[in-house]
Amino acid sequence: MWLQETIELRARPRGVHLITPEVLGPLRSLANMRRGLLNLFLQHTSASLAINENADPDVRRDLESYFNNRLCPEHEPYLTHTTEGSDDMPAHIKSILVGSSLNIPIVNGRPGFGTWQGIYLCEHRNHGGSRRVVATAWGETS
Amino acid sequence: MWLQETIELRARPRGVHLITPEVLGPLRSLANMRRGLLNLFLQHTSASLAINENADPDVRRDLESYFNNRLCPEHEPYLTHTTEGSDDMPAHIKSILVGSSLNIPIVNGRPGFGTWQGIYLCEHRNHGGSRRVVATAWGETS
Amino acid sequence: MWLQETIELRARPRGVHLITPEVLGPLRSLANMRRGLLNLFLQHTSASLAINENADPDVRRDLESYFNNRLCPEHEPYLTHTTEGSDDMPAHIKSILVGSSLNIPIVNGRPGFGTWQGIYLCEHRNHGGSRRVVATAWGETS
Repeated sequence: MWLQETIELRARPRGVHLITPEVLGPLRSLANMRRGLLNLFLQHTSASLAINENADPDVRRDLESYFNNRLCPEHEPYLTHTTEGSDDMPAHIKSILVGSSLNIPIVNGRPGFGTWQGIYLCEHRNHGGSRRVVATAWGETS
Repeated sequence: MWLQETIELRARPRGVHLITPEVLGPLRSLANMRRGLLNLFLQHTSASLAINENADPDVRRDLESYFNNRLCPEHEPYLTHTTEGSDDMPAHIKSILVGSSLNIPIVNGRPGFGTWQGIYLCEHRNHGGSRRVVATAWGETS
Repeated sequence: MWLQETIELRARPRGVHLITPEVLGPLRSLANMRRGLLNLFLQHTSASLAINENADPDVRRDLESYFNNRLCPEHEPYLTHTTEGSDDMPAHIKSILVGSSLNIPIVNGRPGFGTWQGIYLCEHRNHGGSRRVVATAWGETS
């Protein structure tokens, strides 16, 4: 069984967003997959996908603060790719470090998440607009 | 050929640990796979999986020092998610940057590692307890 | 349909290099895959693979500057694994943070990249030599 769909995520402000239902909603036929794998691939170079805490929103706020205060501040002297704004090159860097693709096992028709895991969209641009994710899944049907 | 198993890793202290035999030991039927892929998915948000040097333990010690001294020190003023301890939010951050999932090709019944590659569990909590990995593999039999 | 090939990348100087044609060139039979997935796995512990901007070379230069000036400078007091040179341990660290493996969906015979996405080899050693990538793809034929 194969499944491939492009999901259009609505535009979000810069920051870290929990998008588990928005991504999994259109993939209802995963329920028919006994064991398999789901790949999520973000078609952009200035945002990223991650898996982390699905409960306390403090985690997402702190992550965004960390990105900007410590991991990759703007206006650093070694950054020259700045014509599209000071948020542009740091967005590329964060995208490379966090990554733009996820692989999630499917176990008995559901993502094999631990209790506290959810899917994050990290929007690294001030005005990134809507974002596209290619979802590809394959596996055995029940 | 499909294979899916949950592997329970024994509790380890905070730090970087080489777990290649503990992960691959329960997956002996991979020997029957001529070409394929193995996904390892950690069901936790405060530890991570990586592939790196399997020989000199200095690499793993230096990596842990780097995590704590440079990448993400504790007690930083921008971190607010601290009720579970000062190691909690840095553990989430390191988990996001290192990643919680690996994809390893299977070549003639064995992981297609280079000479120096092994699997690391990066335990980012002071007392993380045991950790679960979902291993999913699929491929052609010989 | 399965495909597995080892691709030998020519030696490159330390820095970030766009390698999309060198990697995809030997994988012409991907054109026969209607939907599927391509895994690229670098068999080394001191270089990495990433997906990012395929146009402006400033992005790749700035990324290399960022790696060295901010993410992981050499000669830091907490790094002890230095017998092979001051670039060695930082190379392992960058490899772990950027990652050594990519998963790219195949959509109608082509990689499902967004407009601006290409494949980077990040060579973290001063003299890394040639590098090997195991390419594994599987999917449905048209």
